[in-house]
Amino acid sequence: MLPAAQFAMAAADIHHRTPEFRAMYQRVLGQLRAFIGSKNDVILMAASGTGAMEASVSNLTSPGDRVLVLTAGKFGERWTALTKAFGCQVDVVTAPYGQTFALDAVRAALKPDTRAVYMQATETSTGARHDVAAVAELLRSAKSEALLVVDAITGLGTTHLEIDEWGLDVVIGGSQKAVMIPPGLAYLSVSERAWQRMETTKNPRYYFDLRRERKSAANGESAYTPAVALIAALGAAFDYIAGQAGGDLAIGRDTLIDNAETCAAMTRAALPAMGLRLFAPDAPAAAVTAILPPEGVDSGVIVKEMKTRFALTLTNGQGEMKGRIFRVAHLGYFDPLDTLAVIGALEQVAHDTLKTPGFKLGAALAAAQQILSARTKQLTATRQ
Amino acid sequence: MLPAAQFAMAAADIHHRTPEFRAMYQRVLGQLRAFIGSKNDVILMAASGTGAMEASVSNLTSPGDRVLVLTAGKFGERWTALTKAFGCQVDVVTAPYGQTFALDAVRAALKPDTRAVYMQATETSTGARHDVAAVAELLRSAKSEALLVVDAITGLGTTHLEIDEWGLDVVIGGSQKAVMIPPGLAYLSVSERAWQRMETTKNPRYYFDLRRERKSAANGESAYTPAVALIAALGAAFDYIAGQAGGDLAIGRDTLIDNAETCAAMTRAALPAMGLRLFAPDAPAAAVTAILPPEGVDSGVIVKEMKTRFALTLTNGQGEMKGRIFRVAHLGYFDPLDTLAVIGALEQVAHDTLKTPGFKLGAALAAAQQILSARTKQLTATRQ
Repeated sequence: MLPAAQFAMAAADIHHRTPEFRAMYQRVLGQLRAFIGSKNDVILMAASGTGAMEASVSNLTSPGDRVLVLTAGKFGERWTALTKAFGCQVDVVTAPYGQTFALDAVRAALKPDTRAVYMQATETSTGARHDVAAVAELLRSAKSEALLVVDAITGLGTTHLEIDEWGLDVVIGGSQKAVMIPPGLAYLSVSERAWQRMETTKNPRYYFDLRRERKSAANGESAYTPAVALIAALGAAFDYIAGQAGGDLAIGRDTLIDNAETCAAMTRAALPAMGLRLFAPDAPAAAVTAILPPEGVDSGVIVKEMKTRFALTLTNGQGEMKGRIFRVAHLGYFDPLDTLAVIGALEQVAHDTLKTPGFKLGAALAAAQQILSARTKQLTATRQ
Repeated sequence: MLPAAQFAMAAADIHHRTPEFRAMYQRVLGQLRAFIGSKNDVILMAASGTGAMEASVSNLTSPGDRVLVLTAGKFGERWTALTKAFGCQVDVVTAPYGQTFALDAVRAALKPDTRAVYMQATETSTGARHDVAAVAELLRSAKSEALLVVDAITGLGTTHLEIDEWGLDVVIGGSQKAVMIPPGLAYLSVSERAWQRMETTKNPRYYFDLRRERKSAANGESAYTPAVALIAALGAAFDYIAGQAGGDLAIGRDTLIDNAETCAAMTRAALPAMGLRLFAPDAPAAAVTAILPPEGVDSGVIVKEMKTRFALTLTNGQGEMKGRIFRVAHLGYFDPLDTLAVIGALEQVAHDTLKTPGFKLGAALAAAQQILSARTKQLTATRQ
């Protein structure tokens, strides 16, 4: 967690129906729009990301509506469960875990009466990146009336999303990922088309009623009691991100994305020397790298060794992927030097625990260093 | 906000799918049960109190179900709006703002097919206390199958609620009230009868699906990403509350309630000397005292003077009550000496701004002091 955010959170002891809170709330909403990079209204809510996912279903659909879910992992499956829970008629395009969808399959599944398409920008459970721009283009060229809803909870700040240019109707983010503060806040950017849809949709919503929140935000407040401390932390995180980029949050966001891309590329380059393989080699996300352990090794062994020997928290696979992969996050506060440290620890585990045949200590680090050097030159050239 | 909770929140930088988090989560859930004083399962969620209110509607009802709402203020009206949003057929017993319901009216409105009764323990918008025990007894004696759902967001820790003895099916609390931490966490105790009801109810729910949370809690986790920092803060607040009471959270809760009752009684006693009147004289809550300004005075003037001269945050009336009342909270961290300070400031405003006829500085404080002395003697005698 970002230290400045920790202190802001601890210090934010203000009542939420006061001018002080309204000033802070408006400021953070403005920062959020700049960070997301959209002219659309942004709604902030006291909930984790799944709450915002629910809001994008309960507000945008009526029971019986046909929707299309693109899924290739646990979070894609959450879209299926959510849209079914709210009575939608759900078409599903599935790709195997670790892969992304074939656009032809998406095109074939899109029907004239498809009301909304739900997808992830990056599938956290598998480390795969989905091609949001291509799906948006497909919807546009098909003159579809379907709203495009993107869960970018781990995507925002780790992958480029041109919300307005691509025409993304709803983009969902959370607090605990690239913006480096504790979980408990979720947010959505909502397009004018999506606001119009809400005039007629009939699924029940109250706590997650986006139109009510929009109306309250126009008065500088939240509809229900807001998560004051987390909002203060979010403001401090945005101050930090902007501060690292001469005060420009959009540049700060791009810097964060470059940082995640660099850390992810370093991690990918480090794997072969240690006998480890990428789980999503075709479309790897920058948010998180999912890694296959050597044949016959439970990934939990690696997660446990990293924790007990080095106090590093990697994550195991979720659900049926447990034991089959492990995941390294590249979100927010982690930088290339942290990545070297993680790779250094993984080298120790590969050497001492996995006893990877032919592995020489330092080989994975050397591969990562090559990437860091090349990326640094490339980014420096781009910025000049 | 409780300082120990501020530090715990800032320090709680742990991932939520780790043994560390599971240990903390289980510990806090145990503390929560002890604090609430019920054997029922307790569910904790990342949301403000209204989210838990929604959960008690979406999980316990089906569209078309007949429910009874008891309302005498803004939060009672929220029950009406919520149950209507989820398609219930809503009977309403209304009492005027500042009053509580006649039990005969409740009895008359209860039908054989009433599936649930929704009420507040204390109506924060008017400072009135409702007789939860009497409503519970009425349901029991009528052999009603209606579940009793109590919004105790400001009631927990300020008024006695014997959840198991009275048979309260769902009792809802929040983080920012008596437990003195920032908003963003809500919780519910859920009776076995209520769990059974969920087997057949048909309203859509996903993020607030209580059965899913119960299942995850049995594995030591939350179903969705939890508000980690706020959970750590809640644990620290319970440690503090228990620590003040020899390690016993139940005694700590009773001490909190006694404290709120004392502060509220002191405040009530102080009003007449300053020409101020109680808005809910017949059933005043200990959580908050709602006060009528002198005839012809906008209550906002008093709120503003208290803020600008003394940096004290009182709250104005909500909605149509704005300008007509102001409210003093007695929650959690406020103690009798803080109450003396608030009364002292109110005296200054009464003297200098309201120019209350015949008011002598110190008269309101003297009245409050009498109460404090008497209550202290009474509580000391009770505890010996």
